[in-house]
Amino acid sequence: MCEASAYWIKDGGETLIMESVDILEPDGADAWRLVDIFGNQKSIKGQIKTMNLVNHKVIFEKNEMG
Amino acid sequence: MCEASAYWIKDGGETLIMESVDILEPDGADAWRLVDIFGNQKSIKGQIKTMNLVNHKVIFEKNEMG
Repeated sequence: MCEASAYWIKDGGETLIMESVDILEPDGADAWRLVDIFGNQKSIKGQIKTMNLVNHKVIFEKNEMG
Repeated sequence: MCEASAYWIKDGGETLIMESVDILEPDGADAWRLVDIFGNQKSIKGQIKTMNLVNHKVIFEKNEMG
């Protein structure tokens, strides 16, 4: 399966947000809705910094403004 | 491998942008940089509508403004 793990990046370190993420969708202008393969949902206020699908990683960072 | 295909969605139809996408990163405020597993790059002026990792799909839509 090709789900990914989502992380916050801050000060060079990574903090896990959610594992086994299947779906990512914008949730308004400054947030993302994540849904894992079990159907659990989370809304993340931030922006995607990078996604690396082969490495199963999505990295989020906090919005600089707001 | 867990790369995805990227598509434009328009009028309910999908048009292939790039296959075997590995990396997706914001490219300024209104664009995304895509890199496939072969190292080919493309910059896409639009926004992500949805990503479905288990189905290996990333759907882009054109920016409504600009």
